[in-house]
Amino acid sequence: MLTIKRLDIEDARVLIAGARAKAEEIGVPMCIAITDEAGNLVAFERMDGGKVTSTTIAIDKSFTASGAKKATHLYGETSQPGAPTYGIESAIGGRLMVVGGGLPVVADGDVVGGIGISSGTPAQDMEVAQAGIDAFAATL
Amino acid sequence: MLTIKRLDIEDARVLIAGARAKAEEIGVPMCIAITDEAGNLVAFERMDGGKVTSTTIAIDKSFTASGAKKATHLYGETSQPGAPTYGIESAIGGRLMVVGGGLPVVADGDVVGGIGISSGTPAQDMEVAQAGIDAFAATL
Amino acid sequence: MLTIKRLDIEDARVLIAGARAKAEEIGVPMCIAITDEAGNLVAFERMDGGKVTSTTIAIDKSFTASGAKKATHLYGETSQPGAPTYGIESAIGGRLMVVGGGLPVVADGDVVGGIGISSGTPAQDMEVAQAGIDAFAATL
Amino acid sequence: MLTIKRLDIEDARVLIAGARAKAEEIGVPMCIAITDEAGNLVAFERMDGGKVTSTTIAIDKSFTASGAKKATHLYGETSQPGAPTYGIESAIGGRLMVVGGGLPVVADGDVVGGIGISSGTPAQDMEVAQAGIDAFAATL
Repeated sequence: MLTIKRLDIEDARVLIAGARAKAEEIGVPMCIAITDEAGNLVAFERMDGGKVTSTTIAIDKSFTASGAKKATHLYGETSQPGAPTYGIESAIGGRLMVVGGGLPVVADGDVVGGIGISSGTPAQDMEVAQAGIDAFAATL
Repeated sequence: MLTIKRLDIEDARVLIAGARAKAEEIGVPMCIAITDEAGNLVAFERMDGGKVTSTTIAIDKSFTASGAKKATHLYGETSQPGAPTYGIESAIGGRLMVVGGGLPVVADGDVVGGIGISSGTPAQDMEVAQAGIDAFAATL
Repeated sequence: MLTIKRLDIEDARVLIAGARAKAEEIGVPMCIAITDEAGNLVAFERMDGGKVTSTTIAIDKSFTASGAKKATHLYGETSQPGAPTYGIESAIGGRLMVVGGGLPVVADGDVVGGIGISSGTPAQDMEVAQAGIDAFAATL
Repeated sequence: MLTIKRLDIEDARVLIAGARAKAEEIGVPMCIAITDEAGNLVAFERMDGGKVTSTTIAIDKSFTASGAKKATHLYGETSQPGAPTYGIESAIGGRLMVVGGGLPVVADGDVVGGIGISSGTPAQDMEVAQAGIDAFAATL
């Protein structure tokens, strides 16, 4: 039998609040998605002005980061032409995201969920995702 | 050019809070989804213990209620065998929900979004959706 | 070798104009889709106020009517519990529509396309689809 | 509550007419799709001879341009190997288009919709999309 650690809805709100604060600071309205360690959606907010297309993209970045226990930008590096995971971005009906902005959420060495950000540049998305992680880490 | 009214993220949080309070009162952890008037997701929360399958179902109930400007349980009535919209439940890749728990969000006579609830019985889902609507209506 | 008769874009516009005139007459803004005899979309209009969910539904009604050479409401009859095509409404990823509002477009005994209407009641959708057909028939 | 500006069906017809005139001028029959600012289809025409595969591609180019508020060819630039959004073309079930021919439709600084063109070379598709935009801009 396994015992799984998983973020709860309060943790998800902390992650969203941290991300949103950074998004407001840099002036880019974002889509913010939180998934649990099983890859299933726990919470989501599209800030006013966040992109419609980013709704799905944020959810899928978080799905990828939590389900694969790997930041999406690291998939981006290993998915370049000639690199080992080349072509993986169309896997799972296109849900496997290799663009930066998805980070696993870790507690005590275990992946307990994921955060996915979309609407800015990948660099902005990554910065906002990290701000969510930082806010969560401060509660541990 | 058209001018459209659409709920914002603050409205979505009010809808979620109203629904969550009712869900806690009746003791059923719910998935709560809010879409805008175009059917796109604005906010979502899966309460601790909410069903994994209900994640998509709540989102699609809200999508249906806002996109069709119609409560999902009304589709349930008109989709019975022999009734006019029989068979519509598999439309749009199965996103067209005819199970109760999706309600349009109305302001000044315009549909400005939708709320979709799932994890309880349809009657419980409808009660929780209505509580979200009531909380929102109190702010108008 | 086959020689196929297929409606052209001018025919599609006639069909849409006829349907739109009836929709305006009955005061129900509609989604209007025209497909060719191969089931592929030729033209589409969502009247101001037409339902978002009806976008896909109108296209799929027309797809069904042209591809199966059969009015969608006839599928509705044969898809009731115990009837021969029971359950067919979820075929083709849910694109096979059994709700009224899709009609084949016939010229000289050949199906040359389809028209699909959605946003009203099925009876209204069927009336508006027929008005499109009538406008087209008047040009033959 | 938000107040949104959205193109209406008359605007969509102007966009299509402008695009079609350019397509006829250069002798390339095109698929022409217009979406609203939420990414939902408003109008579509496949000119006689337009490609079947381009039906979906034109719709998805317009979806991308309106939903992401960004021309699809700009995504093409930032999605090359080694560039920031590499791999994004398979997002949203492949609906995120990075091939030229999708442009946001802007009025008074707001994105009010999108236009998507497909059947020619990307350069031809972009030229035809711009002609639609120009025809619309002349009405403002």
